[in-house]
Amino acid sequence: MYIPPYYKNSDPKIAIELIKENAFGLLISSDSAYPFATHLPFLCREENGKFRLFTHLAKVNPHAGVLAGKEVLAVFTGPHAYISATWYKNQRNVPTWNYAAVHVKGIARVVSNEDQVLNLLQETVAFFEGGKTEHHQQLPAEYKQALSREITFIEIEVKEVESKIKFNQNKPKEDLLSVMQHLIDSGDHKSKLVADMMRRFNVLD
Amino acid sequence: MYIPPYYKNSDPKIAIELIKENAFGLLISSDSAYPFATHLPFLCREENGKFRLFTHLAKVNPHAGVLAGKEVLAVFTGPHAYISATWYKNQRNVPTWNYAAVHVKGIARVVSNEDQVLNLLQETVAFFEGGKTEHHQQLPAEYKQALSREITFIEIEVKEVESKIKFNQNKPKEDLLSVMQHLIDSGDHKSKLVADMMRRFNVLD
Repeated sequence: MYIPPYYKNSDPKIAIELIKENAFGLLISSDSAYPFATHLPFLCREENGKFRLFTHLAKVNPHAGVLAGKEVLAVFTGPHAYISATWYKNQRNVPTWNYAAVHVKGIARVVSNEDQVLNLLQETVAFFEGGKTEHHQQLPAEYKQALSREITFIEIEVKEVESKIKFNQNKPKEDLLSVMQHLIDSGDHKSKLVADMMRRFNVLD
Repeated sequence: MYIPPYYKNSDPKIAIELIKENAFGLLISSDSAYPFATHLPFLCREENGKFRLFTHLAKVNPHAGVLAGKEVLAVFTGPHAYISATWYKNQRNVPTWNYAAVHVKGIARVVSNEDQVLNLLQETVAFFEGGKTEHHQQLPAEYKQALSREITFIEIEVKEVESKIKFNQNKPKEDLLSVMQHLIDSGDHKSKLVADMMRRFNVLD
């Protein structure tokens, strides 16, 4: 991902937060003429300011069979919104798109140990259920084992993290405030999230 | 993208609708070890039930320089939500993710004629502004020409469209209704969109 300097985020905490809050990512590899992409939920395990990334996919998905040892890209897209040129105070502008995204490059490693896979699946459930695993723990062990054999569990050995925070940082304060107001006035929940990001990542006071 | 038969959408109108409503897509190519991906707004021009796909990116983005003639994948992600296993009536279930996505495979062709580029940029603005191009038309011609020279405009020569509509179609009606109610009760706008998709793509009555 190309990131101009003023859109570059170098804070790993923010990258991890973006991944966790937008954990339904896209796993991409370059297996044939066309890139192969699969939409998947990711588990991001924070460790000493860095993170480990895990996901799983059905074995019946042909993508599962070609990932072992591959260079992969995992893409996480945060809040985003179209920004109309008419929203700036300065009228000599063209539209843009404000967004946050994290691209993680790494090597896909298959987790083959069944106990490890069962533990990682429970950790994944815990993450998406806000820590509540009662239902998952009460499922019959044979049922969970049988299902775990139908999936390929992957750890991505992280090699590079690209983190982009593009929220009009190249615009003067009067334009920022005007764009934020239009986003808020739209009444759309997604647009309000973008206005929040604009406030967070620009110096407005 | 792997699509089991019960999640496959074969209606081009629905694919076009999904692209237009989720037009901030991801353009991916396989240039090096890792796939190269750029988040971009797309213009989808419907023509006789098929469509043409256009986008543009800054020339300063290294992706722009390697796209000509390349096999590319454009990914559009529609409404999506985590589905807790606890939301099904039948408790013997594991979580899943409901989502819609369209993957367009094609060859990137650079549009180099300046007038064509200016017209396509105006068409792009018209699409995102709901037809309103007054502001864009009033911008000085030299300003628009200068900006148009800083971008690479791409048409994707569409080769294959993969369209996935994954909304619990493999579940019985009682589970579908229960999941929909949980999504609606969450009060989250994105979850309500997923409930709408579940109603639209399942036979519930």
